[in-house]
Amino acid sequence: MCHMSEAQAAQIEVSEIQGLIDWLAAFGITSEGGVTRLLYSKDWVNAQNALKQKMEDTGYTTYFDNVGNLFGRIEGTEEDVILTGSHVDTVVQGGKYDGAYGVLASYLATKRLVELYGKPKKTIEVVSLCEEEGSRFPLTYWGSKNIVGEYSPMTIEGMKDKDGIPFKQAMTEAGFPFLSYKTKKRSDIQHFIEIHIEQGSVLEKSQLDLGLVSHIVGQKRLTVTLTGESNHAGTTPMTERKDALVCAANCISELTAVAKLEYPALRVTTGQLIAKPNVPNVIAGNVNFTLDIRHHESEVLETFCQRAALLLQRLAANSGIAIEIDLWTDISPVPLDTKLHKDMEKKLAAKGLTYMQMVSGAGHDAQVFGQHIPTTMLFVPSRNGISHSPLEYTDSTKLEIGVSVLMDYLYELAY
Amino acid sequence: MCHMSEAQAAQIEVSEIQGLIDWLAAFGITSEGGVTRLLYSKDWVNAQNALKQKMEDTGYTTYFDNVGNLFGRIEGTEEDVILTGSHVDTVVQGGKYDGAYGVLASYLATKRLVELYGKPKKTIEVVSLCEEEGSRFPLTYWGSKNIVGEYSPMTIEGMKDKDGIPFKQAMTEAGFPFLSYKTKKRSDIQHFIEIHIEQGSVLEKSQLDLGLVSHIVGQKRLTVTLTGESNHAGTTPMTERKDALVCAANCISELTAVAKLEYPALRVTTGQLIAKPNVPNVIAGNVNFTLDIRHHESEVLETFCQRAALLLQRLAANSGIAIEIDLWTDISPVPLDTKLHKDMEKKLAAKGLTYMQMVSGAGHDAQVFGQHIPTTMLFVPSRNGISHSPLEYTDSTKLEIGVSVLMDYLYELAY
Repeated sequence: MCHMSEAQAAQIEVSEIQGLIDWLAAFGITSEGGVTRLLYSKDWVNAQNALKQKMEDTGYTTYFDNVGNLFGRIEGTEEDVILTGSHVDTVVQGGKYDGAYGVLASYLATKRLVELYGKPKKTIEVVSLCEEEGSRFPLTYWGSKNIVGEYSPMTIEGMKDKDGIPFKQAMTEAGFPFLSYKTKKRSDIQHFIEIHIEQGSVLEKSQLDLGLVSHIVGQKRLTVTLTGESNHAGTTPMTERKDALVCAANCISELTAVAKLEYPALRVTTGQLIAKPNVPNVIAGNVNFTLDIRHHESEVLETFCQRAALLLQRLAANSGIAIEIDLWTDISPVPLDTKLHKDMEKKLAAKGLTYMQMVSGAGHDAQVFGQHIPTTMLFVPSRNGISHSPLEYTDSTKLEIGVSVLMDYLYELAY
Repeated sequence: MCHMSEAQAAQIEVSEIQGLIDWLAAFGITSEGGVTRLLYSKDWVNAQNALKQKMEDTGYTTYFDNVGNLFGRIEGTEEDVILTGSHVDTVVQGGKYDGAYGVLASYLATKRLVELYGKPKKTIEVVSLCEEEGSRFPLTYWGSKNIVGEYSPMTIEGMKDKDGIPFKQAMTEAGFPFLSYKTKKRSDIQHFIEIHIEQGSVLEKSQLDLGLVSHIVGQKRLTVTLTGESNHAGTTPMTERKDALVCAANCISELTAVAKLEYPALRVTTGQLIAKPNVPNVIAGNVNFTLDIRHHESEVLETFCQRAALLLQRLAANSGIAIEIDLWTDISPVPLDTKLHKDMEKKLAAKGLTYMQMVSGAGHDAQVFGQHIPTTMLFVPSRNGISHSPLEYTDSTKLEIGVSVLMDYLYELAY
């Protein structure tokens, strides 16, 4: 266990984790102060190689797998592996913390554990996963899904980035020859643990140090297309209209009200709405809008979606409007390991830390591992809940608390 | 009066008015079967000159005023003028009937009147107004507003079309030197009468021959800007959101419901809505949408707009969203001369014609004249209510009924 008091930690170590984050951010830093580090790009290659060197310098055995996940291995007396880390890629003009913090906190926590307690019982591997965001190619979790054997060469067949560069070529040029790539499923990993910034403002608003993540939400994304009749705004009586935009407004309004009133943990968002012809004095004949629906329980997610479909169909039928509903993303909720959180709560409280159980509303590599092996996830607060932006920020004290707690969890798992 | 039975009229004359419409449509016909005849364009000049020639061939004295309104004068025994006509310009890819029908029906009705009854008591002028639509330059009613003295050289100062051609240059090149242009207000016009296609489907759905227009609606156009907070669709609890799109949906939904329930003749339309950033998994931080509000009574229009503003402000405040409301068009309703309609009703009924009093939801030159002199407007049905489109159509029988009724009205006014 880490024997420093919180005050000491804050005083002495603040700069170490923040220093590491700033160091890694240099690979892909933008003039706006954000970071762009896309899979297999030059900045990505340099960041992974620099991390490799740093882990080697610390005495870890390092290696890349055949897609570019980087591992730093601390051999234990047992062969079972406790895997800890997060992803190294970013969105375009993302922040310094998303992913990077989890990789660097894992590095720092293990380094300190070894310094304090020597060799672990179980083998620990720190992982810098090659890809999570899906920002360069139209797929996500390339790193984690390759470790659990969910991807294959077919997954990326014909896939290109927006500049037309084939996935296979980008991969090969980054040093991971596509021809050597095969589906592999690791069976030696006993537990995965990831720490990440919250990317929301729940912890900050509650003034808590930590989120103990119990689930990662399931997501359904749908596009609703309403087809009415485009007509003259002046000459068409209200009762004769088939106004697709009024119908869309009724749909969004009612669905949001039902969600708020009856489904407390559910989140439903219409982020995108496109009306046609979108002219002030013409009734909109056609509207399509998206629904992003998230909940941590499959049953609730399914029930709500069925109810939503009925509600939308009823509202459309009442207005004489044709409706199509297209479900284009359907990800199940993933329950994570809550037993370990439960076991750790007393220790967190003893250190004076404040925390809450929470659900992750965003996707993470933990949801990929969580479907195969016991998986634990921790959140630290995000200032103003801002993420995927150069404004992403968590102060050093909170970052350091995260590292110290990750040490406690890893001690529990591996020592 | 016209002594033909309706059946005779339909049989004999159908082709005459349709023939004239097709003849005029040749000036500016498009490959899609529409008409594009923009103010001062080559097709416009050719159309006006062809009309001038046709009226001269019929024995009318013709002249252009200094902006390009074309008049065909039938001298009466009195100097007071009964003005009848409509506009010759079209929208881009418009129909053959909008405006053109009113000009040609006026020509045909006066020609037949003179053939049947000789010289009128009052002088009649058929007018082909140079511009109504506002499709080339950003102003409307250039023709009619010049006759009533509402425009001046300052009106068009610096005005250019989308190709950068100055209004003054276009005017001069069409044969109407800008340097000769001065504000003039004609004081000899005693009455204006316009016949037009409905551009809506009320008459068609009611299976009526004619609309006797009592008012032209007033219009207010507003843009509502809602500013909330853009945020992550997954990590932001429903209760913590400032979702500008949900707020817009509530506004549109409630406002439409109030209008339908409590303001029967009012029309309110949100034709345009723009959400930002307009991405499925991001809460919209900013939405702006338009409101097009029309009614034929000033008081109702004002009352509704005040109520709308309060309703929108309340809904925004309830969601913690900032609101701005910008009124960018404000046109008063214009009551037309209904006494003449009343006087004519018995005659219409005696001819077996069916009709209704109605309000025009679209703007017309009649609303310009109606603010200065007694003005009468008649509508014939529009197939499917379609206008400003190559699909615009009214069948010959209905067109001919319109001509015959216009003869009756002009006989009443001028003989």
